[in-house]
Amino acid sequence: MSATTIQPPYLLFVGDARDALAAKTAAGILHWRREWCLGQVVWPDCGAELDLPGMNVAEAAAAGGRTLIVGVANAGGVIPESWVTSLTEALRAGLDVASGLHDRLDAIPALREAAAATGRRLIDVRHPTRSFGVGTGEPRSGRRLLTVGTDCSVGKMYASLALVEEMQRRGLDATFRATGQTGIFIAGDGVSVDAVVADFISGATEWLSPASDPEHWDVIEGQGSLFHPSFAGVSLGLLHGAQPDVLVMCHEPTRTHMRGLPNRGLPGLAECIAANLEAAKLTSPAVRCIGVAVNTRALAADAAERYLRDTAAELGLPCVDPVRTGVAPLVDRIDR
Amino acid sequence: MSATTIQPPYLLFVGDARDALAAKTAAGILHWRREWCLGQVVWPDCGAELDLPGMNVAEAAAAGGRTLIVGVANAGGVIPESWVTSLTEALRAGLDVASGLHDRLDAIPALREAAAATGRRLIDVRHPTRSFGVGTGEPRSGRRLLTVGTDCSVGKMYASLALVEEMQRRGLDATFRATGQTGIFIAGDGVSVDAVVADFISGATEWLSPASDPEHWDVIEGQGSLFHPSFAGVSLGLLHGAQPDVLVMCHEPTRTHMRGLPNRGLPGLAECIAANLEAAKLTSPAVRCIGVAVNTRALAADAAERYLRDTAAELGLPCVDPVRTGVAPLVDRIDR
Repeated sequence: MSATTIQPPYLLFVGDARDALAAKTAAGILHWRREWCLGQVVWPDCGAELDLPGMNVAEAAAAGGRTLIVGVANAGGVIPESWVTSLTEALRAGLDVASGLHDRLDAIPALREAAAATGRRLIDVRHPTRSFGVGTGEPRSGRRLLTVGTDCSVGKMYASLALVEEMQRRGLDATFRATGQTGIFIAGDGVSVDAVVADFISGATEWLSPASDPEHWDVIEGQGSLFHPSFAGVSLGLLHGAQPDVLVMCHEPTRTHMRGLPNRGLPGLAECIAANLEAAKLTSPAVRCIGVAVNTRALAADAAERYLRDTAAELGLPCVDPVRTGVAPLVDRIDR
Repeated sequence: MSATTIQPPYLLFVGDARDALAAKTAAGILHWRREWCLGQVVWPDCGAELDLPGMNVAEAAAAGGRTLIVGVANAGGVIPESWVTSLTEALRAGLDVASGLHDRLDAIPALREAAAATGRRLIDVRHPTRSFGVGTGEPRSGRRLLTVGTDCSVGKMYASLALVEEMQRRGLDATFRATGQTGIFIAGDGVSVDAVVADFISGATEWLSPASDPEHWDVIEGQGSLFHPSFAGVSLGLLHGAQPDVLVMCHEPTRTHMRGLPNRGLPGLAECIAANLEAAKLTSPAVRCIGVAVNTRALAADAAERYLRDTAAELGLPCVDPVRTGVAPLVDRIDR
């Protein structure tokens, strides 16, 4: 799809990641695309360890590896000096290097020179390499599901991928459409929608999910929340550009405030569903919400079960945890 | 405010503008900042003429001019080859050159070299030169008015400037905050909000309208419409970042479809006001709408008068045309 399709197989660079959270990009790729992952580069002082063989760049290249993925994040999204030698060696070994960090690989002279000398690519998935038209809101063929959320980082990507897996298992024709860094590594392409110029949010989303076969489903990864004052503009443009036939609301029930904003509580689920449906109607008048995907990891099993049951009764909608229960009850609502 | 404050007095470059519409940036600057405008550069084949003396760059510099403003727009926002000599001469005469077009002045080698050689500045107001933090939605001191609209290009900038003028006439402390190209030339600074990276729409707006004296009014120029599927994300981020105490809804009553989208009608005024208030409450719980500013230029005087009267009765809000009636009834609602 994009000019910067990322080629598997991957070598996952975990480097000196402090802990498992710092390596969550790598962990997400491994979880959803184990068949694409050859090995990991882990340094002795690393606080994270993936269930993958340790491997150097030469070994990865010899095993058919195509791309080293920077699978570790840090505050500020910087590329520390200490990584540059490893990344340069990857280019010299014949791998592309891809990163989703804020800092650009191609802003580092040593990497730029090594890429030019070897003919390999530096892929900064956070920074769109193409321009987009403005969105039109015109109807297009195909069916679309968008995950939305009460907040950022409540499991929209995970829910989207679980839905695609379940849909494909039932023989539905479904494609995951990635809008964030980790999702792009998992899909192999996509658009980091929060990084496009503001005028083109809905246009980039329309481009990401073009007209398709009438029975085909695009499952589009949502971003942010209409109720997050930092990012609601992104969420609304994505909602309008996606033209979703159906929404799945994603939620984390133990969160006490909106991510990054200690003074701001989360919206109620019913209120958040209603606001998303109302806004989505602008470009998709028949939109409906088919249920809620809850990340109950912080709850004990019985509390999670009770939460899902009570919430389903309250909303009159299926409520699932993609990890604990799977998403079959959601797919039941579209698989007719 | 910004790193790229534009210095008056201005020389307005109209060049070969086809017609008055193509020169509307220059006309807007002249209307609101006549005292900053020394003269115009108009070529023989120009289809637009401002009420200003013709002047060359040397004359403008001798008269104390500081900046040549590209006051003409064209489809695509390109800077044609034919303008480059004139713009280079302006730099050599000692003027800065400022443009709000999509094409960047500083992407043209001849201009870049002339700017470096003369120490003058190339100012591309459409392209933010600084980065912004993400918005927080935290309350900040000072009072804020935001103009919103049923569509793009319905007179939000004009209404905002008319409101500031009326507020200042009554001794209120009020500042115009520009969010679009023409507005930035009129204010001398501002942020082209639709051109920032999507993640930072509300953050850029918070930066544009910082905490101020509790009685001070910022009058913030709105962009787009919550009901325009191309640009609603920008409008929502602007609404959240502005944290408006009051909204003024702007409307053009003869428009048959949303700008640029022939198949899409405009929202009703009551529906559009309700949706904007509902969305604005996220960061400004006590927000209220103080009235409607209607651009009735396309109506005859009696039809305009009837439209304003009927709409005011229907909505229970003052309805004015900033040009025909002035905005006093709106300012009455805050001047207490």
